[in-house]
Amino acid sequence: MSLTISIDAMGGDNGPEITIPASLECLRNSPNLKLILVGDEAVIKRLLPNDLSPYQDRLSIHHASQCVEMDESPSKALKNKKDSSMRVAINLVKEGQADACVSAGNTGALMATARFVLKMIPGIDRPAIISTLPSIHGHTHVLDLGANVDCSAEHLFQFAIMGNELVKAVEGIEHPKVGLLNIGEEDTKGNEQVKTAAKLLENSSLNYIGYVEGNSLNAGSIKVDLIVTDGFVGNVALKSIEGAAKMIGTTLKEAFSKNIFTQLVAIIAYPVLKSFKQRIDPRLYNGASFLGLKGLVIKSHGGADRLAFKTAIQLAEVEAKQDVIKKISEQVEKTLALRDIT
Amino acid sequence: MSLTISIDAMGGDNGPEITIPASLECLRNSPNLKLILVGDEAVIKRLLPNDLSPYQDRLSIHHASQCVEMDESPSKALKNKKDSSMRVAINLVKEGQADACVSAGNTGALMATARFVLKMIPGIDRPAIISTLPSIHGHTHVLDLGANVDCSAEHLFQFAIMGNELVKAVEGIEHPKVGLLNIGEEDTKGNEQVKTAAKLLENSSLNYIGYVEGNSLNAGSIKVDLIVTDGFVGNVALKSIEGAAKMIGTTLKEAFSKNIFTQLVAIIAYPVLKSFKQRIDPRLYNGASFLGLKGLVIKSHGGADRLAFKTAIQLAEVEAKQDVIKKISEQVEKTLALRDIT
Repeated sequence: MSLTISIDAMGGDNGPEITIPASLECLRNSPNLKLILVGDEAVIKRLLPNDLSPYQDRLSIHHASQCVEMDESPSKALKNKKDSSMRVAINLVKEGQADACVSAGNTGALMATARFVLKMIPGIDRPAIISTLPSIHGHTHVLDLGANVDCSAEHLFQFAIMGNELVKAVEGIEHPKVGLLNIGEEDTKGNEQVKTAAKLLENSSLNYIGYVEGNSLNAGSIKVDLIVTDGFVGNVALKSIEGAAKMIGTTLKEAFSKNIFTQLVAIIAYPVLKSFKQRIDPRLYNGASFLGLKGLVIKSHGGADRLAFKTAIQLAEVEAKQDVIKKISEQVEKTLALRDIT
Repeated sequence: MSLTISIDAMGGDNGPEITIPASLECLRNSPNLKLILVGDEAVIKRLLPNDLSPYQDRLSIHHASQCVEMDESPSKALKNKKDSSMRVAINLVKEGQADACVSAGNTGALMATARFVLKMIPGIDRPAIISTLPSIHGHTHVLDLGANVDCSAEHLFQFAIMGNELVKAVEGIEHPKVGLLNIGEEDTKGNEQVKTAAKLLENSSLNYIGYVEGNSLNAGSIKVDLIVTDGFVGNVALKSIEGAAKMIGTTLKEAFSKNIFTQLVAIIAYPVLKSFKQRIDPRLYNGASFLGLKGLVIKSHGGADRLAFKTAIQLAEVEAKQDVIKKISEQVEKTLALRDIT
């Protein structure tokens, strides 16, 4: 099966200098993949190799005259940038010319534009952002990571339904373990939203395992496949983890750079430290999916390098191949029908 | 100046086996410190050395016939454990016999008991838990870490006032940099509570620097002395950081244990890895203070070992020496008076 992904070639802190080489690498790795590079045609052409024959008809350029700035307000981008690389890349998904779209652009503008162009799946009130974190058990999927600052119990329930379908499809797990992020595992813990969401999840068909705490994102006592939380908490947790990893990495580097002796040790330990670094390399976890929309949009980290952006394209490929949006839509419809009956 | 601290000797996962040796070590290090060990006199006596002469009159035992279990509900502990080591240790603060109290017991029960016995500072609606995290800039104080699951903007403002006094006193900084935890630095980001709290902080006498994100807890681009957030978010962030540190530590250990070669490298790198580990040792950050009460209560991690519990006693000593509660009370009164005028 051939898949087509539209790439917002101009998006991100590094723009086409990164998105284009990453795209070419994905094409070389995936013989059935087709990519549409969306952006300034002249710029894109300048960065492409002269000989495109290895990519045959699997690479095309779709001109877009505008760019959404990284600090542009979502409403302004929506109003004034109708021919932006971001908007046009999403339009291609809407029109069925692409199965998914990947952008490293401004998150707020990407979310607003995707929501405006693609519309919501009926029955879902709000889109949510889901991504994956490394854990001692493998990895954990988490949503929402920042699309919603105030969530009702019903919103958390909808996130769980959507996330569960994504994890099933992407991981090939029949009954993913779903946990609700809270400040303790006891029933009495948490705020009203969380407590009510817990009841909704207990009465659902999901494999709900109960409350989990912040440490479960990376290193809980048991493996959890999907952790559900509101966007404020999820975003703070994600960035707290990024900060912790940065501090630990910096401290480790400082310990090995301290003096001649430690620098010598660093040389000897280099292969071990390298293999350690690779195992928790955040670039291998790049790419967040917007769930709840009628089309597949993957957000790459704005500062993504070639490897990180490649990971985001590969994520789009997997999710498109697994027809995640269709599966989510069907499941949401089923859940709603079941509610109408009961 | 001589200071007296009451120790809940029975509290924590490890109880007197840990609390007593840690207490003795603190006495040896601090010639002006007095400690009251509260708990089962027979048990305590058995664990004390025969020769107490090095501690002269600086060590006493206060018998308490009961213990609060680690999983006991706060309301039951409050109702049924009136002679628990925890309750009696707090009573000693209330009665002026101790300047502070340290417990590694059940957090919920400790908070409920402390609040019941000591009462709130007038003008403060809710107590908050504050602790310190290591950061690339030194360290960061954070509150609330879990006492409150739903906070209004006014609560966040009160936390900031209290935390600011604590940081001033403990760190000797005249104008601590205060940040409000949010999901972005732009004014448009966040929920209503955070946005309203930001306005209150902007109009206050605090050195408010604006919104900070989760990564600022350990590794922000600039140094922040105090980060304010509600207890749900703060607790999740803290535990997320703990999980991230555990995962990274586990991965590093695995990389060095992989085979004979990596194990050999580990032996060579041992002093470097040890100095790295010491710099981010969570035991050196043990101890959280309950702010908003009319007395000083320090909560140690339940699983604290001797070094960690010693850190918590030392924190109590510093805060008692700096008369943190008095300073907070005065500042709260001043802030309220200012509001009455305006």
